[in-house]
Amino acid sequence: MAVQAVESSTTSSGPADSAAAAGSSVSLGPAVALSCRECGERFPLGPIFACAECFGPLEVAYDLPTGDPEGLRRRIEAGPNNIWRYAPLLPVPADVADKPNLNPGFTKLVKADNLARELGVTGELHIKDDSGNPTHSFKDRVVAQAVEAARAFGFTTLSCSSTGNLAGAVGAAAARAGLRSCTFIPHDLEQGKVVMAAVYGGDLVAIEGTYDDVNRFCSELIGDPAGEGWGFVNVNLRPYYAEGSKTLAYEICEQLGWRLPDQLVIPIASGSQLTKIDKGLKELIELGLVEDKPYKIFGAQAEGCSPVSTAFKAGHDVVRPQKPNTIAKSLAIGNPADGPYVLDIARRTGGAVEDVNDEQVVDAIKLLARTEGIFAETAGGVTLGVTRKLLENGVLDPTLTTVVLNTGDGLKTLDAVAPTSGPTAVIRPSLDAFRDAGLA
Amino acid sequence: MAVQAVESSTTSSGPADSAAAAGSSVSLGPAVALSCRECGERFPLGPIFACAECFGPLEVAYDLPTGDPEGLRRRIEAGPNNIWRYAPLLPVPADVADKPNLNPGFTKLVKADNLARELGVTGELHIKDDSGNPTHSFKDRVVAQAVEAARAFGFTTLSCSSTGNLAGAVGAAAARAGLRSCTFIPHDLEQGKVVMAAVYGGDLVAIEGTYDDVNRFCSELIGDPAGEGWGFVNVNLRPYYAEGSKTLAYEICEQLGWRLPDQLVIPIASGSQLTKIDKGLKELIELGLVEDKPYKIFGAQAEGCSPVSTAFKAGHDVVRPQKPNTIAKSLAIGNPADGPYVLDIARRTGGAVEDVNDEQVVDAIKLLARTEGIFAETAGGVTLGVTRKLLENGVLDPTLTTVVLNTGDGLKTLDAVAPTSGPTAVIRPSLDAFRDAGLA
Repeated sequence: MAVQAVESSTTSSGPADSAAAAGSSVSLGPAVALSCRECGERFPLGPIFACAECFGPLEVAYDLPTGDPEGLRRRIEAGPNNIWRYAPLLPVPADVADKPNLNPGFTKLVKADNLARELGVTGELHIKDDSGNPTHSFKDRVVAQAVEAARAFGFTTLSCSSTGNLAGAVGAAAARAGLRSCTFIPHDLEQGKVVMAAVYGGDLVAIEGTYDDVNRFCSELIGDPAGEGWGFVNVNLRPYYAEGSKTLAYEICEQLGWRLPDQLVIPIASGSQLTKIDKGLKELIELGLVEDKPYKIFGAQAEGCSPVSTAFKAGHDVVRPQKPNTIAKSLAIGNPADGPYVLDIARRTGGAVEDVNDEQVVDAIKLLARTEGIFAETAGGVTLGVTRKLLENGVLDPTLTTVVLNTGDGLKTLDAVAPTSGPTAVIRPSLDAFRDAGLA
Repeated sequence: MAVQAVESSTTSSGPADSAAAAGSSVSLGPAVALSCRECGERFPLGPIFACAECFGPLEVAYDLPTGDPEGLRRRIEAGPNNIWRYAPLLPVPADVADKPNLNPGFTKLVKADNLARELGVTGELHIKDDSGNPTHSFKDRVVAQAVEAARAFGFTTLSCSSTGNLAGAVGAAAARAGLRSCTFIPHDLEQGKVVMAAVYGGDLVAIEGTYDDVNRFCSELIGDPAGEGWGFVNVNLRPYYAEGSKTLAYEICEQLGWRLPDQLVIPIASGSQLTKIDKGLKELIELGLVEDKPYKIFGAQAEGCSPVSTAFKAGHDVVRPQKPNTIAKSLAIGNPADGPYVLDIARRTGGAVEDVNDEQVVDAIKLLARTEGIFAETAGGVTLGVTRKLLENGVLDPTLTTVVLNTGDGLKTLDAVAPTSGPTAVIRPSLDAFRDAGLA
């Protein structure tokens, strides 16, 4: 399988070296090693992200608390109302909840009965609404893991390449944790995301180029003395960072009463979130916290950036990069690192990957707002738009329990709906003017 | 005391009449009547808001569950993670949690140690962060009560006069509840608030005038056939609506471990929120859920709309209306209905009312973002700015437990910080460009 290996895995330097060298002395809870997703080779916990043998991506391997599912369930339920209730399953220290961080997660799982009626869904339809996170996107979940890894490895600057949401999440988390931040974004983002990325007081660098240019630049920086001592949450801390998306799987199942959904619809940017939700669901089965039964995972992309959807429909294993052109900027990753794994998961579980155009994205944002009072960002519009399309095409089963992810907040992508979401009328403050406007 | 009585209390009409006439047959949990805050006269529960005897404002009177504080505490703690855990203390049906609504509340109480250090606070400093609510302001709390009252009284259209946040909260809540909405705002609001107020699909009417003009217009509309069958959450449903702010008091105390804070700093728009937080604290004492001890309540206004602060400093009982001119538009109520009650409470508890200018508001927004990773709207900047001023003036005691409210979200008032919150640098994607920018 084609895996996008990053150039070098030996770029850790500065304060990170000692911790990385120390390996197992790093205390990140149940995390015991990094293992290569391609060849299975194991490495001590450290700020590395690509296999020294085959350049495959590394992920966290655990010693999970098996054997007492009831005890584990009770322990989780007695935990805090945030992701740290799942600390026994995450690469974080046991006392993580006591440290200064944004405590994201345990966002609402909304039973969307009005929406179900409109879509002709007769089973349960739920929206997992991550706009309720501290900086209003799911990124707070992954950044929270990266902060703990950064602390463990002695990094003092937190960094990232970002389509906007992540830069805000990193800026906020670094502020609370007392770390410096320096984040990188494409130069043409929505105002809300730019301001939010800057307001927490860290350095914010706008790059003249696409997200993929920003990403390449960060890979260069990490091998350069200028990036010494920096924890890039989605590069050299990526194995830890990515695990944060598992919490979406945990929460969905717990909020369904420790039950797996039948179908999940998940947006695809790099594809990492989708693969980690699958990992989280499998862990819950292995731990005996949910009944072992099949589930299907569906991926959602915007037509203007649909490399994974295109590959899925063509029956390819390889994802061919695209140059993005879509209003769903938070999903505009033309060269998605986890694309091949997404294809695997969609095919293995009997799911699919589909895409919708910008008009369908806007329609879906407004549909969700009108039916459930949830204002999603464009990524949420993509996911709901694809859900609608898959229902219309008979690919999604309307009689089953389906969970659709909203990963961000409409306030950050106002431009998408602003042209069609304004006052019905502008009038003088008089009853006559009100009647003349035809609203009485 | 000067109370701003509304012109008429006999404007209820249409479907409301029967319910209002039925009085006690309306089932709103522990709510048993409406009572006049001025003369004490009681009225059956109905969509009325001013005393027929003296034109004083009406508020909800309860038959609260006294006598078993431990049982009540356990019942609350076993409740849902939203305001409905306090349903036994609110004017809502006992089965409210099962009905379609936005389930706001139980937002984070953030222990703000970084901020405390910057401000020289040696006691506990907490931010009650209501940006975590479904539409990202405290308004979701009050609207949720109004929705239940609207249902009880048979209203099918939900309406309000709003400075922006409320219109969004009403639009979203109506969408989820399956009600029509028609909301009214001044014509010059921030784009984020306008789009959010419109996106949920109800009618949104922009009025050429200030908030006070909008408010007057709604009072006219409610007495007109054009407003028949409409529940104006902050006019004819105001007694119920306002009670939602009590939940801030409940949550703060529960999250402190069933303990009263020593000092609270609360923003003042109409003043209703501050008075209801005081009411909620007194109820907790009466119910035996917290120890009876003194607390001080401080009110915060923007200098450009400071009628209550001006009256407080002048030693007046009467609040003289002002024409607002401040970036804190959600607090820009020049003629605050509950102003006199705020003065009473600040004086009775040993608190104060203070104001800050727009520059101090922006500084405070950025201070909170930089220290705690919380991006507040201008109202939050006013409250923290006043907190800082009161500490500097020696009015707030830095050694005590202090809670500061952030009632809204910075994403809705981007213009306040956008001029000073942008990228540190805009560069080509190259290491040379990065070094040239002086960031390495």
